[in-house]
Amino acid sequence: MSERGPSGPLVGVVMGSASDWETMRHAAETLERFGIPHERRVVSAHRTPDLMAAYAKEAEGRGLEAIVAGAGGAAHLPGMIAAHTTVPVLGVPVESRALKGLDSLLSIAQMPAGVPVGTLAIGRAGATNAALLAAAILANARPPLREALRRFREEQAEKAEGSELPGPA
Amino acid sequence: MSERGPSGPLVGVVMGSASDWETMRHAAETLERFGIPHERRVVSAHRTPDLMAAYAKEAEGRGLEAIVAGAGGAAHLPGMIAAHTTVPVLGVPVESRALKGLDSLLSIAQMPAGVPVGTLAIGRAGATNAALLAAAILANARPPLREALRRFREEQAEKAEGSELPGPA
Amino acid sequence: MSERGPSGPLVGVVMGSASDWETMRHAAETLERFGIPHERRVVSAHRTPDLMAAYAKEAEGRGLEAIVAGAGGAAHLPGMIAAHTTVPVLGVPVESRALKGLDSLLSIAQMPAGVPVGTLAIGRAGATNAALLAAAILANARPPLREALRRFREEQAEKAEGSELPGPA
Amino acid sequence: MSERGPSGPLVGVVMGSASDWETMRHAAETLERFGIPHERRVVSAHRTPDLMAAYAKEAEGRGLEAIVAGAGGAAHLPGMIAAHTTVPVLGVPVESRALKGLDSLLSIAQMPAGVPVGTLAIGRAGATNAALLAAAILANARPPLREALRRFREEQAEKAEGSELPGPA
Amino acid sequence: MSERGPSGPLVGVVMGSASDWETMRHAAETLERFGIPHERRVVSAHRTPDLMAAYAKEAEGRGLEAIVAGAGGAAHLPGMIAAHTTVPVLGVPVESRALKGLDSLLSIAQMPAGVPVGTLAIGRAGATNAALLAAAILANARPPLREALRRFREEQAEKAEGSELPGPA
Amino acid sequence: MSERGPSGPLVGVVMGSASDWETMRHAAETLERFGIPHERRVVSAHRTPDLMAAYAKEAEGRGLEAIVAGAGGAAHLPGMIAAHTTVPVLGVPVESRALKGLDSLLSIAQMPAGVPVGTLAIGRAGATNAALLAAAILANARPPLREALRRFREEQAEKAEGSELPGPA
Amino acid sequence: MSERGPSGPLVGVVMGSASDWETMRHAAETLERFGIPHERRVVSAHRTPDLMAAYAKEAEGRGLEAIVAGAGGAAHLPGMIAAHTTVPVLGVPVESRALKGLDSLLSIAQMPAGVPVGTLAIGRAGATNAALLAAAILANARPPLREALRRFREEQAEKAEGSELPGPA
Amino acid sequence: MSERGPSGPLVGVVMGSASDWETMRHAAETLERFGIPHERRVVSAHRTPDLMAAYAKEAEGRGLEAIVAGAGGAAHLPGMIAAHTTVPVLGVPVESRALKGLDSLLSIAQMPAGVPVGTLAIGRAGATNAALLAAAILANARPPLREALRRFREEQAEKAEGSELPGPA
Repeated sequence: MSERGPSGPLVGVVMGSASDWETMRHAAETLERFGIPHERRVVSAHRTPDLMAAYAKEAEGRGLEAIVAGAGGAAHLPGMIAAHTTVPVLGVPVESRALKGLDSLLSIAQMPAGVPVGTLAIGRAGATNAALLAAAILANARPPLREALRRFREEQAEKAEGSELPGPA
Repeated sequence: MSERGPSGPLVGVVMGSASDWETMRHAAETLERFGIPHERRVVSAHRTPDLMAAYAKEAEGRGLEAIVAGAGGAAHLPGMIAAHTTVPVLGVPVESRALKGLDSLLSIAQMPAGVPVGTLAIGRAGATNAALLAAAILANARPPLREALRRFREEQAEKAEGSELPGPA
Repeated sequence: MSERGPSGPLVGVVMGSASDWETMRHAAETLERFGIPHERRVVSAHRTPDLMAAYAKEAEGRGLEAIVAGAGGAAHLPGMIAAHTTVPVLGVPVESRALKGLDSLLSIAQMPAGVPVGTLAIGRAGATNAALLAAAILANARPPLREALRRFREEQAEKAEGSELPGPA
Repeated sequence: MSERGPSGPLVGVVMGSASDWETMRHAAETLERFGIPHERRVVSAHRTPDLMAAYAKEAEGRGLEAIVAGAGGAAHLPGMIAAHTTVPVLGVPVESRALKGLDSLLSIAQMPAGVPVGTLAIGRAGATNAALLAAAILANARPPLREALRRFREEQAEKAEGSELPGPA
Repeated sequence: MSERGPSGPLVGVVMGSASDWETMRHAAETLERFGIPHERRVVSAHRTPDLMAAYAKEAEGRGLEAIVAGAGGAAHLPGMIAAHTTVPVLGVPVESRALKGLDSLLSIAQMPAGVPVGTLAIGRAGATNAALLAAAILANARPPLREALRRFREEQAEKAEGSELPGPA
Repeated sequence: MSERGPSGPLVGVVMGSASDWETMRHAAETLERFGIPHERRVVSAHRTPDLMAAYAKEAEGRGLEAIVAGAGGAAHLPGMIAAHTTVPVLGVPVESRALKGLDSLLSIAQMPAGVPVGTLAIGRAGATNAALLAAAILANARPPLREALRRFREEQAEKAEGSELPGPA
Repeated sequence: MSERGPSGPLVGVVMGSASDWETMRHAAETLERFGIPHERRVVSAHRTPDLMAAYAKEAEGRGLEAIVAGAGGAAHLPGMIAAHTTVPVLGVPVESRALKGLDSLLSIAQMPAGVPVGTLAIGRAGATNAALLAAAILANARPPLREALRRFREEQAEKAEGSELPGPA
Repeated sequence: MSERGPSGPLVGVVMGSASDWETMRHAAETLERFGIPHERRVVSAHRTPDLMAAYAKEAEGRGLEAIVAGAGGAAHLPGMIAAHTTVPVLGVPVESRALKGLDSLLSIAQMPAGVPVGTLAIGRAGATNAALLAAAILANARPPLREALRRFREEQAEKAEGSELPGPA
């Protein structure tokens, strides 16, 4: 689907820890569903800050058009990635053990003016939606992907409309 | 800057109420700064739901590549715009009187899987960043805008580095 | 019990997703208990927004005198139903996974002036009470239903008074 | 507008303290706007509990079809009114000094199954909407009031659509 | 231990629902431990408001010197008991399902000036402490009970001091 | 009013800082109103911990029958006073600058089992009520004080009942 | 590793209750990993306040250079230890049952000016990091420990970089 | 006071923005009071990430023994400084406009295991205490500074003990 060649990823899916995969795989699977070339990496703002900075700085040159970054707790990864690139960054607050992701959400969403991160919902819904938003961003220049997103929405609507509930007595 | 002609807006800046303008003008001013054609509208999910739906449905056909939507309290505008379009939607939680925008933030960020909204920070920082993220999205297909974003970041860094504080005794 | 004929529902019980049924069935069962004709539907503000709008717009003409709407997370369904009708709308915040329904509660309760939603408690107590409040609304013009509500309260009181606890040593 | 005679109130607007009037007058003014006969009372769950109980018990017999109750902090008034009547009770969380009405909201909304209160937003928006919801409830049996609510919504929509914002440069 | 005769309770342990017993039994067991005559009752502010009012009004005449009241969610019982008596009322916020007792805590603690409730911690620690505080209140006029409380504290300290942890390597 | 002589205080009103006086004076003034002998002290858990411990340890011997302790933020004073005495301790969460007393409330209310503190509302309402609860505790052994509390409640009720609101149009 | 002799502990790991060990053992194990002499104690601010005060007062004389203190709920231990010593105190908010450690966090972090506590994250991450921060403090005067911390960070980075995730399709 | 020469700073006081100075000057002034050589810098994690990384990496070599870092909102500065150094990092949550520093606090405190930050209170109390904790850390190897801290505590205690409050009537 990429218009830049068959091999280069268009979206980077990064996370602070391999334990975030259980959440972030919903982003990866959604990108797969739309055939969007992407890569998956553990890039920790805290444990591998230089790798993180290098990844973010090289993102544009490598052809990435969106980065989906997930982290939990004091979740600095999305904001720090965004500090090093002007490629759109989408943040996924991973549900944390004690505070259930409220800390993750505030750590990602409350960025100061100047360095934007688009934040999605806490947990797997957010991971799925980060991928859908990345797809919507890519679709601005790729009409077939726009069309695929429209079909996805229609199928989703049909599925919802077809939901059956027990009738009243 | 638009590659689609001089007259059509590329970004829609919408808000639930004219009283949100004090916040949302930071989005508009930021888009202006980058010369990005855009439009500004009061479109209320609750008071003008049909207008809102029509606006969202026509967004793609009218050439919008991003919609920045601000609302406060039970802030349904960004999510409902997103329900009617696959154009990227960026939500700005406007600071509410009693709960200071925590209600706005949760109402915008916690979308269910399937209909994404990229949420920014509460208040004017969020409005500014929504415009910057919209610019970053547009820049994927517009190298000069990417370059302008880079320069903006550099200037921002220079300004930060030049900050003077009183020295120690 | 309906005074408009045996077949037409007086209350609509709607929810954003079939997964909300586990909560919302407490509304349906309570309406059943009072013999109030009602219908149950999955109507998603986000996935089927046009269906949602149509449902709300037709509510009054179809004879509905109250709509009970349940949703979780960024819970827009009750408020958006209310945006399209002047039939009383009662909102049930469904308990969400990460934030336990606090997001649902704020998304439903914090409506701006002009479009009212009566919000009940998070979860099944709220679903039960939405049905009881719908019954109380209907009872304004239906004395037998008022009487049934009174009996329900009396039975509830008797049951509470009859609760046995271990005595002190 | 009342169909029960010119003198009897159809809605009771009660509040825990005269200091709540600044918020609750928005309920009273909205009822006035629609010509709905109503009464206004300070009835404190904590300072005048017997008066409160008597007021609630007599509500139905006096012809009230809805009670709008506002209180702040540990806001027990709406729930305690509801404990004594099956007339629909709508609760308005008054903004409290320290916690800004979050305590009021939870104290009103989180009622246990069996005794319903329809909760509106914190503060004046909630007071206005409580009156609008009371009007919607009354309108079930009063077509002219339903029509008046529809016109109100239309005027509200027209006003929103007519909002002017500064155009882009 | 009572100085008013062997049969009359000095403390009332009341709760809104029999399901609160699992929490409130810690209050009862603590009172038992100190040999304090007490009674245990389900008295619901919402389901049996008249019984509740009667219980509170008769408390002083029946010789109660403290009332321990537990409730969850929109927890009105302690405050409403306090509205009907000047006997000291101690409130126990029972852990609620969705909001984990934060709603219970605020509903009990945030009473307006004029009607006091002494609030303890959420859950069983709070129930235990309500009994200990009731004992401390009774002990003002009962030196042997004061002495018993002192011994309890000493035993508690000894137990804490004797706690063993694995030593360092 | 004291039955232990004209000179000894029965209630200690202590606070962590002189800046808490603006809140805590409502406790002192309420005790004055009932003629209850009391003392007022700045006793800081953090800045004067040994003084605090000594104060608490001597409380019983000096004839105190209740201690009202106010503090803000990480409010340790009430709990630490309670750790050193079995005299009833009532805690007043002083409104803090940033978190508005939510931190104070949790720091005071969430005591572990074994060391009870009766917590009142945040701010001046809580200070007033701490004094009223202290009075209620003293009144167990002082019938005239009980009677004074009853009269206070009656006057309070009369004042509430006499509140005038603008009538409906 | 100690430069003060083989037997004296350099760090005290204290906790309010033996039940906190499950959390605090992560602090002890981390200190062990770096060969830092330390001791482990149950020292309760509420149940053994005099022991707590004595422990804190003797800390400096006994050669402790950091104290790691963990507690949950109304967590007063770290702040009270700090009130009695100028040795650096690091606080670990133990996850509490109802409020998941939010109460513990605020009770520890929100100390007034004058008595500092360095607060770590809620739960085991916080316990581990308290030990690492204690090690960093000790390392100021112990170059080999600084070097060990650097190696720890490098190993941590290598482990993060080596994390494997499933590749894209 | 430094034992490394008269010119080199021992503590770095850094902040994300010059607007944080109003808070952070309390840290600088406290260090000054103790004669601790220090430096003050605007170092933004988001706007000058490379400068931030360089500053942190060079900290140890430049002789810094503690870094006090203040930031607000999605406050990443303390954690990112800590990611690049093993010098002790103390974080000050600056009060943010909408959420009053709750976001700042969680963004700083909730660090994952492996990269510690000692977090102080929100706002100026936290800034003051960060400096006091830095002083306590330095004092481990500088007895005169330990002594100065002790005197500071004593003066603080004397000042608290000398507080005068209006006496009872």
